Amino acid sequence: MMQTIPTWLDIPADSDFSIHNLPFGVFSTQNTPFPRIGVAIGDYILDLHFLVSEGALDGLSFELETLQEPVLNSFMALGNEAVRELRGRLQFLLSQATTEREAIEEEGLTLQVDATMHFPFLIGDYTDFYSSLEHAQNAGKLFRDPAKALFPNWRHLPVGYHGRASSIQLSGMDFYRPYGQIIDKELSTPDNPIPKFSPTQALDFELEMATIIGKPSELGERISAKKAEEHIFGFVLFNDWSARDIQRWEYQPLGPFLGKNFFSAISPWVVTLEALQYFRVESPVQDPEVLDYLKTSGERNFDIHLSVEIKPEDAQPTVVTQTNFKHMYWNVAQQIAHHTVNGCNLNTGDLLASGTISGPELGSYGCLLEITENGKKALTLTNGDSRIFLQDYDSVVMKGWAEKNGIRVGFGNLHNKVLPAK
Amino acid sequence: MMQTIPTWLDIPADSDFSIHNLPFGVFSTQNTPFPRIGVAIGDYILDLHFLVSEGALDGLSFELETLQEPVLNSFMALGNEAVRELRGRLQFLLSQATTEREAIEEEGLTLQVDATMHFPFLIGDYTDFYSSLEHAQNAGKLFRDPAKALFPNWRHLPVGYHGRASSIQLSGMDFYRPYGQIIDKELSTPDNPIPKFSPTQALDFELEMATIIGKPSELGERISAKKAEEHIFGFVLFNDWSARDIQRWEYQPLGPFLGKNFFSAISPWVVTLEALQYFRVESPVQDPEVLDYLKTSGERNFDIHLSVEIKPEDAQPTVVTQTNFKHMYWNVAQQIAHHTVNGCNLNTGDLLASGTISGPELGSYGCLLEITENGKKALTLTNGDSRIFLQDYDSVVMKGWAEKNGIRVGFGNLHNKVLPAK
Repeated sequence: MMQTIPTWLDIPADSDFSIHNLPFGVFSTQNTPFPRIGVAIGDYILDLHFLVSEGALDGLSFELETLQEPVLNSFMALGNEAVRELRGRLQFLLSQATTEREAIEEEGLTLQVDATMHFPFLIGDYTDFYSSLEHAQNAGKLFRDPAKALFPNWRHLPVGYHGRASSIQLSGMDFYRPYGQIIDKELSTPDNPIPKFSPTQALDFELEMATIIGKPSELGERISAKKAEEHIFGFVLFNDWSARDIQRWEYQPLGPFLGKNFFSAISPWVVTLEALQYFRVESPVQDPEVLDYLKTSGERNFDIHLSVEIKPEDAQPTVVTQTNFKHMYWNVAQQIAHHTVNGCNLNTGDLLASGTISGPELGSYGCLLEITENGKKALTLTNGDSRIFLQDYDSVVMKGWAEKNGIRVGFGNLHNKVLPAK
Repeated sequence: MMQTIPTWLDIPADSDFSIHNLPFGVFSTQNTPFPRIGVAIGDYILDLHFLVSEGALDGLSFELETLQEPVLNSFMALGNEAVRELRGRLQFLLSQATTEREAIEEEGLTLQVDATMHFPFLIGDYTDFYSSLEHAQNAGKLFRDPAKALFPNWRHLPVGYHGRASSIQLSGMDFYRPYGQIIDKELSTPDNPIPKFSPTQALDFELEMATIIGKPSELGERISAKKAEEHIFGFVLFNDWSARDIQRWEYQPLGPFLGKNFFSAISPWVVTLEALQYFRVESPVQDPEVLDYLKTSGERNFDIHLSVEIKPEDAQPTVVTQTNFKHMYWNVAQQIAHHTVNGCNLNTGDLLASGTISGPELGSYGCLLEITENGKKALTLTNGDSRIFLQDYDSVVMKGWAEKNGIRVGFGNLHNKVLPAK
């Protein structure tokens, strides 16, 4: 059992940002407006730029300048040795009566409510996987012969595709309901579908986790499943906002495009792989057996509770999904091994999303498409409203946290609001 | 008819890099090893970093520092006014007996054979379209009911999907034949395909052109078809190397992934939209009529001859494809209007590829999949060898050039060699 680390800071017991977490982000304040790297702790942000300037991190073996840049990339590229070393020092500073404590208390801590968060890293490529068996089955049943819901490749490889990086934004940003081509039901016949130009009528969220790549790989280099986790800096919550009607019309034969790339969002704090080591669990048994390059052993999944709330304007939120990251059929090490098996290179700042995360039972589905069975079963919210897909001014709030033996490591909130089409 | 501009430089008559072209690239030399921006002219590179330092570009209305950066992005972001202004000045300097001529001749010109080319811009997102009617029909016939070769959406929107940016490299780079999952014909039955791990047995090229975005757009902003070309800095040749067997097994339902992302390549010189204005032609008639946001008028296609050669090791090349960019059913303005109609933002350095470019007749097909009808008809090379797909040590050479009334604007060569799987 892991020992709880005491701290001289007052941290609420239910805080996502315990001393065991120390997630990384980039923030600025009104008085000090340049974006800089910080670590969330309780209700505060610990300013790493300040700690370096004060000499409080002296003696660490990596280049401390990486912690004074306006994005995390240089630090992330160092790999997880540096993360472990820095976490150790930060936990020491936050728990012991060091000579730096007074300076930290006076100048090194900012209340999160007083800070503006920035995108924490320069994003590279964005890949979206499709690694939840339950989601793939539920989605497949809605559109294909239910007996053949999964394509033949699904259990042999972690299906993935490339997404749009430019439109991935931060929690808190609102966005406009997208326009696009959707099928005009009045003009169309089964043999001759005719599109019209319209705001989407089927706006959906997708609950996902995203892996953020730290140590890069070279073109032509294959990362083994065994070594794959060495390339993971950490994780964020990810909402892969989707317009189902645009997606349905456009996606054959080359996959999703405008149905997805209008907007996606991440939570602002990157929770490190190191902080999640304590919450490992076994991966599901894979049947049939996978090819050698995809084989992993040991505990490769993570026990992270996930929830989704829909909050209409001026109303209380309704929890519509409760599930867990541990259900993933394909683990993140397998995703990385597969992604690079052909020599494709990974860069620091690449984002590898899990695909929609659904659990096995009702109430654990990761998107409205599954919850409402593509519009057949309306969802009732606590204020009496019903939803098939999302309405204007709806906010979607995602939460994620791991908790074991009184130790809690959480992701904070990921929330965005839908604005009317313009 | 356009007036030929004289120049005091000795430029071969058949050079791709006439004074009407002036394509932009990034180069270094042994003596001056830092990467800097240059313009190809005949057999030379005109060093723009040097020209700025000498004051030869003084008086231009944009920030000249943009031309002293190691990549083109800042300059490209300025938009095409700056390109026009700079081209005018460069053509003046290269044609008139200015006071700068001596300095340029002595220090401002480098032979291309003495230079190392670098990737000319920081790449943003990469999108691949599927805009050649002939290619879509040929590919569709090979895999689906020939009467339904095109999906119902094809004539209503320029189908596109997201590709991998990290593995896009420069002409001249060799790459290893990729490994991946392909169907094991011995173990598989029609109802139960079983994959094996193997180097691809179906390595193919894809002849494409790629649009490079200059002026960016904001998230939530729609670029009209009318204004779309304002966002185009220029074009390069693009080879979207593909592993057909990996692609076939993996691509359903979310599109190409490892069958494409092991390697792609661009030609090193970005030919500007400005240099291609003289070579505009009408776009093909679109039937059925497209939705309003996709309507364009005037000459929106470009008459650019394209060829592909296969060159086995120690053998002469064989021309296997001759086609033209003018055949594209969907023009680049339509691609941009469609890409942003949902509010998706474009960044400077984004690369929008055309999809494989095929013409209407035999000999004008842009990939081996079409040329050999997916392996059914072997191709004979001039050295007597035959090919279904590419073999180890084969090089593929792509060329592109526009020519009218003695004025030639070309792209140079794009060539890469296949190395054995490792």
